[in-house]
Parts: sequence; structure tokens; C-alpha cells
Amino acid sequence: MNLEQELGRLREYLRIKPLYWDQDRGEFVWLDTRLIPFEEVYRRTRDYSRVAKAIRDMEIRGAPAIGVAAAFGMALAALYNNAGDEEELIAHLEKARRELASTRPTAFNLFWALDRVMARVESERSRGFDKIVDGVLDEALRIYIEDIKNNIMIGRHGSKLIEENDTILTHCNTGALATAGFGTALGVIRYAWYEGKNIRVITTETRPVLQGARLNVWELKKEGIPFKLIVDSAVGIVFRQNLANKAIVGADRIILTGHVANKIGTYVVALSAWHNNKPFYVAAPTSTIQPVNDPSAIVIEERSHDEIRKIMGKYPLTLDGVDAYNPAFDVTPPELISGIITERGVAEKPFKETLTAIINHR
Amino acid sequence: MNLEQELGRLREYLRIKPLYWDQDRGEFVWLDTRLIPFEEVYRRTRDYSRVAKAIRDMEIRGAPAIGVAAAFGMALAALYNNAGDEEELIAHLEKARRELASTRPTAFNLFWALDRVMARVESERSRGFDKIVDGVLDEALRIYIEDIKNNIMIGRHGSKLIEENDTILTHCNTGALATAGFGTALGVIRYAWYEGKNIRVITTETRPVLQGARLNVWELKKEGIPFKLIVDSAVGIVFRQNLANKAIVGADRIILTGHVANKIGTYVVALSAWHNNKPFYVAAPTSTIQPVNDPSAIVIEERSHDEIRKIMGKYPLTLDGVDAYNPAFDVTPPELISGIITERGVAEKPFKETLTAIINHR
Repeated sequence: MNLEQELGRLREYLRIKPLYWDQDRGEFVWLDTRLIPFEEVYRRTRDYSRVAKAIRDMEIRGAPAIGVAAAFGMALAALYNNAGDEEELIAHLEKARRELASTRPTAFNLFWALDRVMARVESERSRGFDKIVDGVLDEALRIYIEDIKNNIMIGRHGSKLIEENDTILTHCNTGALATAGFGTALGVIRYAWYEGKNIRVITTETRPVLQGARLNVWELKKEGIPFKLIVDSAVGIVFRQNLANKAIVGADRIILTGHVANKIGTYVVALSAWHNNKPFYVAAPTSTIQPVNDPSAIVIEERSHDEIRKIMGKYPLTLDGVDAYNPAFDVTPPELISGIITERGVAEKPFKETLTAIINHR
Repeated sequence: MNLEQELGRLREYLRIKPLYWDQDRGEFVWLDTRLIPFEEVYRRTRDYSRVAKAIRDMEIRGAPAIGVAAAFGMALAALYNNAGDEEELIAHLEKARRELASTRPTAFNLFWALDRVMARVESERSRGFDKIVDGVLDEALRIYIEDIKNNIMIGRHGSKLIEENDTILTHCNTGALATAGFGTALGVIRYAWYEGKNIRVITTETRPVLQGARLNVWELKKEGIPFKLIVDSAVGIVFRQNLANKAIVGADRIILTGHVANKIGTYVVALSAWHNNKPFYVAAPTSTIQPVNDPSAIVIEERSHDEIRKIMGKYPLTLDGVDAYNPAFDVTPPELISGIITERGVAEKPFKETLTAIINHR
């Protein structure tokens, strides 16, 4: 693919570049989101293990961004290795896939992207070493460009649900910093804003990692979209007092029943909207949809207790060694969800039918 | 009243002394809860304005503690002033009442305690200057001792709702540090623990001021009650996963309809419990009950945006000057509440009847 040409077409939507492929140097580059909004530091590597570490440590986070980064991790594994022949190369890629797959268990896009890269490897296998290497990089670039395009389409479909003077509550960061660029739920908000709609945003701070207070604040300020920051537990009163009239969030994994795994607290956002008769939308690319019907298939990641005990890894807010429970995600049941916005349109209830139709129709 | 004798009777329940009257020095003394759990610093004063500041700045917080502290503030105003006669004294007390009443708008106990002290002033008025002064101090001491006794009775009634092997979710601090001693919702948990029940606690961290992460952790560790700390937004998954089987919280203001104003986030705790068929209890003394039927009478305090922008007043977690919305409380509607535990028993639905009976029956 012609990367420059593709990116040129998307330029007006790419005001923030959270991660990209440096073709001249053959390196993967990403913004370290842990330092946002205080510092804007790009990091770069040729080592796929460094990409795995960046995902594990949440330098790169957000299900779509994780998927794209993992694909580029595979490209690095293909480009830089000691393999002497196709078999050694494929063994090396399998090893890289395992390491990258072990970083975060909930984001479905991670497994989707790794499977897609390995399917490409399979299809190039008979064509020889160089074709496999080229194929992996090409597939990673395709996944990258598609993610941006999908986000823009999600924005286009989702913006139809946004009305003039809406105040939209969102939770966690689902913007450019959670994707290859543009964003999913925050992409819908961004798209509506670019269309000239007069909207406002209320963002939660999103404890423990503060994706709202750090990343949403940074993105919303850059766009000039008016917003207010709230603590996570204020989502109830915000809907009760009619200070927000709809909610849009992203997703880390969606199954065909419409159960949505997303950042811890999404379930209480949905409950709060539902109890006050406000629509609650989920925005995600179809790469987030796991084609199964059993909610118990959704793995919920538990992260370090230090994320709760300390703010940003350094400021203690309780006693050392306090026991905690730190699930990174929760599952919102379909009855609380008004619609699921994908790049192929908005799925409504019954989700089993509409989501199945969406993933089967290309 | 004989303070020493009264306190002696309550000794076994008073393992933490959050505030008290120093009879020898005629001073009001309190633990600065802003520094808990890192430092245990008692502060003391003879200046009622200093008490007002301590309430406003949340050195003293929790509706019952605020009420008791305000009463002691009035005692200081009565003891230390330049009044030449009864009229000047009463004018001075009226001024002190206004200043103390202006500190926090939601906690009903504050107004209840100030009204009670001023009613005592009225009843002593004809007996002369010294009787008024003695009366104010005596009334403050009565309010103090009654609060502890009421907490113990709340614990006794509430503990009947606690079963062996319960895991109880609580939000904000409602323990000794929120009262004259012992606690309301955390008092119920404490009472059940003293009775030997094998229970566990899940406490939210309670952003923005972290009463859970700081104060509950400190109290629960002192008691040896096993607990886990969660971020506020995890209340949904905790009930969904059956990790807690009931919730108990305190209240800053309850009206006769059963609408309960309490720490921001209480409403989403109640919604989360209710959506998962778990009982949700409120524990508070009758001094928290405002005898009105109109929820619009409940004033919701909005506090400084810096509480959200910075942790513990110092560690920044977002950009300077970010606009926020920081309501300190929300209102939980009665349909989500299983019972309201008072020192006179547990009120169940319909609350209008049961709460009216409770406040009219002494």
C-alpha cells in the first residue's frame, strides 16, 4: 500500500498522531500516554518486546490502539530477527505473537490484529521469506490505516445521533490516543464538532489511571470543545440533574449478545443513564466484536493494586500494602445499551441479530 | 452532666476519639482528618471561628461530627467573648451561629445542632449571663454524648441486618472519624464485628477527598476488620460479581420521603446494589432527618474544582484551570433504599410513615 497517499487523504482528521510507522527508519513510534497531559514524549523502537512492554505498561492503551501497536510489533519481529529460513521466521513470529498476546487479556482487537497478521503470514508462506516479511508489514499498515478510516466512519454514523446543544457524558479516553487516530466514542464527539454542532462534553476522570482527567482533557482542549471534568461517581447526579442528555463510551470487547466490556465504571455510567431515561451508546470498530454468545468468554483483566494505592505511580493516597481489588474493566449488559455504533452502521436491539448482520456484511 | 462518668460508660466503644472537649483547659480538640492515615495530629482551640474553619476545610467532616463540632464552637463562643450583658452575649452567639451555619450547606446535623443550642440559650435567657454560658456548654456536651450513644444504638439495630460471612460495601467514611465516636454505617459494621461476626468490607476510595482510601482504611486497619479498597466506579462490578452482598452508607440529610443526600456517588452505589438485587441500607441518627417532604429542599454543596484537579490539595492530576463540576453530595431516591437505620430502629418503606413515626417517637 502507499502509506503517504493514504495518510494524505485522512490528513484533516489526523490532528493528533498517537502512533505511526516511520518508513524511513523502519521503526514504530508512539506517544507515551502515561505522561499526557504534562509532557508529550514520542518513543520509538525496532524491538517487538519493547512494543509488548509499552502495551503492558499502558504507554499505549485503548483497544484499537493496542491492536494496531501489536500489528506493528509483529512487523518489527518480521523485519528484525536472526531467522535463517521461512520456518525459523515463522517460529519467531509465533513467539512474538505469544508475547504480544500476553500483554492485556481483555482488548479483543489485540487478538483480532494478531490473528489477522498470522493469517497473512499463512497466505504468504509459500511465496518465500521476503514475501512473508513484506506481507506482515503490509498487513500492519493496512490495519493501521483501516483503523483510522473506521474511526471516521464511526464518527459519521455516530454524529447522526448527536443533536445541537447536546451535552455528552463520556468515560475513559476513546479519542485519538486510544486508536490509530481520531477515536471511537470521542471520535463521534469530534466528528459532530467538526460538523459544526454546538455540543459540550462531561468527562469522568476515570480512576485509577485517569484517562479522562489526563487524556480527554488534553484532546478536548486541543479541539476547543467545551467540557467539564467530574469524578467518576458523579455520573449519577449528572444525569439526575439533566446536566448531560446522553452518554457515549468505547469498548474493549463486545460479544454478539450486546454485552460490552469496557473501562471499569462503564456499567455504572450505563445504569445512571438508563435510570434517568437518557440514551447510552457504545462506539467501537467491528474488530472489537468477538463472535461468541457467552458472556463468560469475556476475560476481565485485574491490574496492580498500586494503580489504586498511588496516583500516577508515585503519589500515595493510602497506606502501603493495603489490599485492593482492581478490575480494569466491567461488563455492561445489553438491556442498558441504546445502540452500538460501528464503522458499518448503528446496531440496535436485538443485538444478536444486528451485530451478527454487521460482522457478516462487509 | 458528668462528662467523665458518661464517657466511662462508653469506653469500650470509643477506641478512636475524633473530637472531644478538654474540660481542664476549656478547649475543643479534634483530629485533623485531612492528614489521616499518614499523620495523627490533634488540633485545639478556644476560638469558634477556628472551629468554623476546621469544618469548612474538612479537618472535621461527616454530618454528625460537623453537628457536634458546631455545638462545641457555640460553647467556645459562649465561654470566650467580650459581651458585657445577656443581650450582648446573645448577639455574639447569634453571630457565631451564623458563621458556623455558613460552613457547609448540606449536613442537616449542623443546623439541627445549632438550633438546639440556640433553643437552650432561649430557655436559659431569663436566668442570667452565667446560666446561658453554662447552658450552651452543657447542651454541647449533651449533643456530643448523645451522638456517641446514638451511634451505638444504630450499631445495635443495624447489626441485626448483618449476617455471618457478609461482605459489606461501604462508601465514604461514616466511622468514628465522621461522628463524635463509633460511627453510623461503619458503626454498624464495627458493632457486628465486636459481636464476633465474621464479616468483610469493601470500601470505595471516595474521590475526590478520599475518605475511603484514607479514613476507612485507617479505621478498618485499627479494628482488624478484613477489607479491600476499590475505585468508586467499581461498585457495579463488585455487586455484579457477587463480591459484596449488601451495602451500608451514611447520610448527610434525609427527608421524610426517604430521599437521602450523602457523599457523591452514593446514588450509583444504590443503583448498582438494586440492579443486582442486593440490599442497600442507610445508617444515620435522627438528627440527620429534616422533617420536610420536598426533595428540592435538599441543598447540594459544590466544592472547589481543585479537589478534582489535585489529589490531597497538592498532586496535580490534570492541567491547571480545567473546568470541573464538583458536587459534594448526591440524592438517592427512596425506591433504591432497603431500610434506614436510626438509633430508634430501622425504618422501612413507606418511609413517609416510618420516618415520621420515628422522629415523633422519643
